[in-house]
Amino acid sequence: MQQGLARPAALAIDATRFWRTIERSAEIGVGRPGGLARVALSDADRQMRDEFCAWCRDAGLAVTVDAVGNLFARRAGREPGLPPVVLGSHLDTQINGGRYDGIVGVLAALEVVRTLNDRAIGTRRPLEIAVWTNEEGARFSPPMVGSAAFAGVHTVDWVHARRADDGATIGDELRRIGYLGEAPVGGRPLDSYFELHIEQGPELHARGVPVGVVTHGYTAHGFIVDVHGETAHTGPWPMDRRRNALVGAAMLAVAVNDIGWKHHATGGKGTAARIHAWPNKPGILSDYAQFTGDVRHDDPAVADAMRAEFMAALADCARRSQCEMAVFDEWHWGADIFDAAMVSLVRDTARALGVPTLDIASQAGHDAYHIAKVAPTAMIFTPCRDGITHNNREHAGLEETVPGINVLLHAALARADR
Amino acid sequence: MQQGLARPAALAIDATRFWRTIERSAEIGVGRPGGLARVALSDADRQMRDEFCAWCRDAGLAVTVDAVGNLFARRAGREPGLPPVVLGSHLDTQINGGRYDGIVGVLAALEVVRTLNDRAIGTRRPLEIAVWTNEEGARFSPPMVGSAAFAGVHTVDWVHARRADDGATIGDELRRIGYLGEAPVGGRPLDSYFELHIEQGPELHARGVPVGVVTHGYTAHGFIVDVHGETAHTGPWPMDRRRNALVGAAMLAVAVNDIGWKHHATGGKGTAARIHAWPNKPGILSDYAQFTGDVRHDDPAVADAMRAEFMAALADCARRSQCEMAVFDEWHWGADIFDAAMVSLVRDTARALGVPTLDIASQAGHDAYHIAKVAPTAMIFTPCRDGITHNNREHAGLEETVPGINVLLHAALARADR
Repeated sequence: MQQGLARPAALAIDATRFWRTIERSAEIGVGRPGGLARVALSDADRQMRDEFCAWCRDAGLAVTVDAVGNLFARRAGREPGLPPVVLGSHLDTQINGGRYDGIVGVLAALEVVRTLNDRAIGTRRPLEIAVWTNEEGARFSPPMVGSAAFAGVHTVDWVHARRADDGATIGDELRRIGYLGEAPVGGRPLDSYFELHIEQGPELHARGVPVGVVTHGYTAHGFIVDVHGETAHTGPWPMDRRRNALVGAAMLAVAVNDIGWKHHATGGKGTAARIHAWPNKPGILSDYAQFTGDVRHDDPAVADAMRAEFMAALADCARRSQCEMAVFDEWHWGADIFDAAMVSLVRDTARALGVPTLDIASQAGHDAYHIAKVAPTAMIFTPCRDGITHNNREHAGLEETVPGINVLLHAALARADR
Repeated sequence: MQQGLARPAALAIDATRFWRTIERSAEIGVGRPGGLARVALSDADRQMRDEFCAWCRDAGLAVTVDAVGNLFARRAGREPGLPPVVLGSHLDTQINGGRYDGIVGVLAALEVVRTLNDRAIGTRRPLEIAVWTNEEGARFSPPMVGSAAFAGVHTVDWVHARRADDGATIGDELRRIGYLGEAPVGGRPLDSYFELHIEQGPELHARGVPVGVVTHGYTAHGFIVDVHGETAHTGPWPMDRRRNALVGAAMLAVAVNDIGWKHHATGGKGTAARIHAWPNKPGILSDYAQFTGDVRHDDPAVADAMRAEFMAALADCARRSQCEMAVFDEWHWGADIFDAAMVSLVRDTARALGVPTLDIASQAGHDAYHIAKVAPTAMIFTPCRDGITHNNREHAGLEETVPGINVLLHAALARADR
């Protein structure tokens, strides 16, 4: 047995079996060529949940569903009273999503359990696979709503009331697809939470390193801004009397993009994600628009400066467009998210397995960000080709992915047996 | 009898009766306070059409409906074989529309006919009231589609296939509301076409002049631009690899607004009317956006220069956003639209009636622009308060409107009896 491993390094997952689950998942909610459009609580999401639950029951796991549709598949431990070690991610995708984002983490957790079953390896603490509802936010805002509710950030009623552009609410859709469970949301201790996820950036792939040890997150500030103007005719109405809310929102989109470019040399990002305007029609100026965007940087001080730049731009855009602008909602992720001991455990486990690693920051939001508020948490990144994600061309190779899953297996065992 | 009038100036409309029809119309498709939301081919549009047709039948008119839903209410002339003198406008409104835009023109025409009926005044040529389908374009693009089809600009099949954001087509909705008529669209001679319309600008109201003699139109260039980028994650994806179509469209919106301001001193306008992006969601960059906008100027050479400025801006925005941009559709209105003899007739009639007039340009598009392609055409503008339109605060006073209707009455009579 190698130093630092609770089990022999020869204990390894069945890569072929794991890949079959990835390929089966890729048949459910097919989107553009090679990709998926399996948005949260759609018929395709239901089908994927059904398939996953069947796999879990075949693996002898007890599946529970909580009141926001989060799934937990539990493998008993020798000491049932101890809090579980949880491994998870999400099965929903963006509308032009890939086959790997989130899915790899859930199916890696399933493969970990199947591997333990093969060898009849028990653990002191229970293991659980978690599938969080609506991580992507592609249909319902905000993203990561299931894990956030588990962590106590939102109430169940608030989550149920979130409404999609198509008019449906999360509560209605959970009921419709049969995943409005009875288990309470959160409020129970977890020993720890591991989330394996594709990097969604180019570093691991470019360097040929299979495992990213996620040390921290980029600091992010997100905004939803309401813009109020006035309708008028697009023809005769003079420029100096116009209060076109669409122009105000467009100015914000250009401004946040400019802020991203200003900090590009140090890896900063500024994103215009969404503009919704009303009436947004030929012939009439819009009197309402909503802008959604964010700024991110690895250095919290720079991220804060970018936020200040956005707020200054907002005042300037309001003046130039002659519209009223107000921040309707603002969100924030700090840098220090993960548990130092858990991060070290991932790094040390990889070293003991002889798996090369790279310490890396997470630039995207993840369910782990919320679960870290209620349990010691670590993330493991695996490579994705050229960093392409939220795109049907997203690709992760089996060989580059397997080392990370074996790190997950051994790290989870170490945590479960300690 | 005054010089230049075919009938005594004492022949005048019944202002009270006219205003009752305006007030009845304002009960159908009520929108924001004081305004209307009677978009084309909605249930409210059907109700208004039903009411209008009943009024016409009560006035002894023969109503026909053509295959794109245009209504024609005909009052026989002494020589039935002669082409009719047509008076018309539209009854649909913007989603935040007023009570007067278009409606005043149709109901003024009805009042002209009722006035002739009261006095048992016959005419040599037939008179027709025309109601054109979907002038506003608030539900279906393009605007003025009914009058354009009448003028041979679009085929019936093409018009029927126009689809609203709500998924319905013009053909389906015409059938649903019972206004898919059997009469051929256009292809018959009109003696002439008069359209009375609120000015939709501030000049008449500000100067206290009741009648605008519309000499010409602002030259306008409109564009629908397709923007193609690539989806990616809003977090990790580097700025220099981003091809965010929403940013590209926002840059176009800001650019067209800037062009409007550049020519503001000489009355130029640049409008960002609509941005539609996909997926337009938090967490993902949009790979498609469509921008709709236009530039307008009284001087055709300046309008052409503004168009060139927009095309240069398009190339610049494509470069800066790293997106592909292509003009999907472009429209254009020239300045010389109206018939010189018809315009003179309106001016001379007003003078003979002692009604002050102002020669004025039209800055908005009107059904008259299309009908002018197939018949000698003139427009009469009446005042609207502060020029506010496409807004529930649009207001036209009865006393300021009546002189224009009497000019319409006498000008139409002159034309019908010549």
